Amino acid sequence: MRCEIVAVGTELLLGQIVDTNGAWMGEQLALAGIDVTHRQTVGDNLDRIVEAVRLALSRADAVVLCGGLGPTQDDITRDAIAAVMGVELVADEEVAERIRGLFGSRGRTMPANNLRQALVPAGATAIADPQPGTAPGLICPVGDKVLYAVPGVPYEMREIMTGAVLPDLSRRAGQVAVIRSRTLRTWGDSESGLAERLADRMVELDVPGAEGAPTLAFLASGIEGIKVRITVKARDVATAVRLLDAEEKVLRGILGDIVFGVDDESMEHAVAKLLEERHLTLSVAESLTGGLVAARLVNVPGASDWFRGGVVAYATNLKFKLLDVPEGPVVTDDAAAAMAEGVRRVMDADVGLGITGVAGPDSQEGQRPGTVFMAVAMGEDDPVTTMVRLPGDRQRVRQFACISLLDLLRRRLSGEPPRPRIL
Amino acid sequence: MRCEIVAVGTELLLGQIVDTNGAWMGEQLALAGIDVTHRQTVGDNLDRIVEAVRLALSRADAVVLCGGLGPTQDDITRDAIAAVMGVELVADEEVAERIRGLFGSRGRTMPANNLRQALVPAGATAIADPQPGTAPGLICPVGDKVLYAVPGVPYEMREIMTGAVLPDLSRRAGQVAVIRSRTLRTWGDSESGLAERLADRMVELDVPGAEGAPTLAFLASGIEGIKVRITVKARDVATAVRLLDAEEKVLRGILGDIVFGVDDESMEHAVAKLLEERHLTLSVAESLTGGLVAARLVNVPGASDWFRGGVVAYATNLKFKLLDVPEGPVVTDDAAAAMAEGVRRVMDADVGLGITGVAGPDSQEGQRPGTVFMAVAMGEDDPVTTMVRLPGDRQRVRQFACISLLDLLRRRLSGEPPRPRIL
Repeated sequence: MRCEIVAVGTELLLGQIVDTNGAWMGEQLALAGIDVTHRQTVGDNLDRIVEAVRLALSRADAVVLCGGLGPTQDDITRDAIAAVMGVELVADEEVAERIRGLFGSRGRTMPANNLRQALVPAGATAIADPQPGTAPGLICPVGDKVLYAVPGVPYEMREIMTGAVLPDLSRRAGQVAVIRSRTLRTWGDSESGLAERLADRMVELDVPGAEGAPTLAFLASGIEGIKVRITVKARDVATAVRLLDAEEKVLRGILGDIVFGVDDESMEHAVAKLLEERHLTLSVAESLTGGLVAARLVNVPGASDWFRGGVVAYATNLKFKLLDVPEGPVVTDDAAAAMAEGVRRVMDADVGLGITGVAGPDSQEGQRPGTVFMAVAMGEDDPVTTMVRLPGDRQRVRQFACISLLDLLRRRLSGEPPRPRIL
Repeated sequence: MRCEIVAVGTELLLGQIVDTNGAWMGEQLALAGIDVTHRQTVGDNLDRIVEAVRLALSRADAVVLCGGLGPTQDDITRDAIAAVMGVELVADEEVAERIRGLFGSRGRTMPANNLRQALVPAGATAIADPQPGTAPGLICPVGDKVLYAVPGVPYEMREIMTGAVLPDLSRRAGQVAVIRSRTLRTWGDSESGLAERLADRMVELDVPGAEGAPTLAFLASGIEGIKVRITVKARDVATAVRLLDAEEKVLRGILGDIVFGVDDESMEHAVAKLLEERHLTLSVAESLTGGLVAARLVNVPGASDWFRGGVVAYATNLKFKLLDVPEGPVVTDDAAAAMAEGVRRVMDADVGLGITGVAGPDSQEGQRPGTVFMAVAMGEDDPVTTMVRLPGDRQRVRQFACISLLDLLRRRLSGEPPRPRIL
């Protein structure tokens, strides 16, 4: 089954908006086993939309038209579909009632324009709007093919794609199978390193004729590490989940402690879970990261249960004064350890983190930019420390430093050894 | 003059990459006065690329083909162009020499594949690569139309577009004029509020037949405020700059103190400049923003000249213990003021910032999520405080709170009154 995407919006052509919808839809369609060979982008111009849709229908089995469903005069996707189908627009009373109800419930009078959103090409079906009052999607039969219209607002588009368009497409494709995927999040190895670790497993899975074997893909996600995606096709969801569980277990056996999370679980979520399980509170002393570590931690919902606070000791003498770092060099293991101990004491926390280093562009204390020392102080033992040399400019060094420190904490909390020092 | 963009790459269709190039090119072409009515995206498939280019050439005067110029077997844009032009690929010795030289200078042997990058459709001109060894761009005459090929790597694409494609397009369009723009960055008013302030000016500028009058556009940039872009067309750069200067002066007169910067100047850059001019050092006490304010400040190059550090007093009792906030409610003007005074004292800084509030999702001390109190302590006077009610989820509230506080500091340093409290 082949599907084509047509994105509508002059603002996309003028570059006022980056088309993130196209990438998301492409990914979801690929996951559903549907081929996408073309994407067209056109402005808010009736003739051009009609022409683009006709071209798309000439070479694909299904077309997703994204954008132009709003209430203003610019929003002409409905008119274009009616022209392609050769039918009139008719008011869908159910949709109109929902829109009126929405304005009524807010005590507002509805501008007449908004009723445009209740117009539907004759023969098409409105997809119930996931949020009342938003533009509903459309399913429009065109001969033996199908045309879907979805709103351009990313959140609404995703709801309608996931809830209605993708299931309808799968049904039409006659897929009795379901496709599911799961992503293992890793930190601490390169893409080629991961590929090497998993090479044997990938050969095992790639047996010709072995239907239903999981497929693996690597997705680099910049400073968030590398993702390993497992995709399976199965006759039902329960079987798919069982296959995913089994493959996850195999991969975790191979990858070991570089896996920090699954799917949307970020490094700070992983750390938060470990702290909550162990009923430990946390504080952080930062130098080069300047507050980034703390800011990431407080983004986890419920952070106030375990996060006490932090000290950004950017000026050197504040490290001595506020954190009792011994006077002397501050880009060292010992300084990181003293910062971790100091902030733990000052903030009455169970665990203290310390991070110091050189963001660049200049060297400091003879250390080149990208050199970062980190420490975790916890319990009665001496703090665990490590050092990394990070690539990139000032901002990238900070971001990498931040996640490296959180990974060190994750390893300490899980009882795993720190990654080897990079020298 | 009409130009069409054809983006090449299966990874764009699969959603592995978001097409940021398309938006950038669209913006640059619009600024150059060239119409873009369509963008097509196709995978790495020879027939489909050829078909897309032919379609584009049938309706536009110029086509920019982006991607597929690399050294691997997947990179078939050159072959597609040769097919469209009906010519052979021939080796460009100058390009081949540059590629060999690059490998030689690094002491590496060149894989034979890399010489693919030296192939040029007969009759086309290679655009000198801005960085030796990268894929050169191509200018390919097709009848009375023109086809450009640019690499998909954003940095290389931008270099070749700016250095060769846009000037060539302008020349072909017979434009003796240059087009320049400047963006005023604002914070503190809505898009409709700005439009109202500038309505009279826009009417003045929109005199029919008044060639060379600047045009104005609003660009919402989310948490970074709203940009007002001035665009002028003039016979030379000096005249364009003079027109921009004049219009900037008029707009600043109308907009007043909501303008905080120009072009790429962010709020933290504006604040850094003011601190440097006044030889003042800064420290910040944060609660709900959890380190974000400090992290933004240290991103400014040279921050160590004026930024001392910060305290993230996330747990309530740390506000009392570390910052001498009087025990009692902590989501108040007084608490923000005490935090600002406290951190200034603890960190020996000239200026102290304090910020406290409710990020959500739950209310705190009877204040609803989005309620934020901020203070700037400086000199002998009482701290300046203000309060805002911000929209959005936890993360947006934090981001808005952060820039609101920096704006309060900017106003205090410039001797402007704080924005009125929003109640």
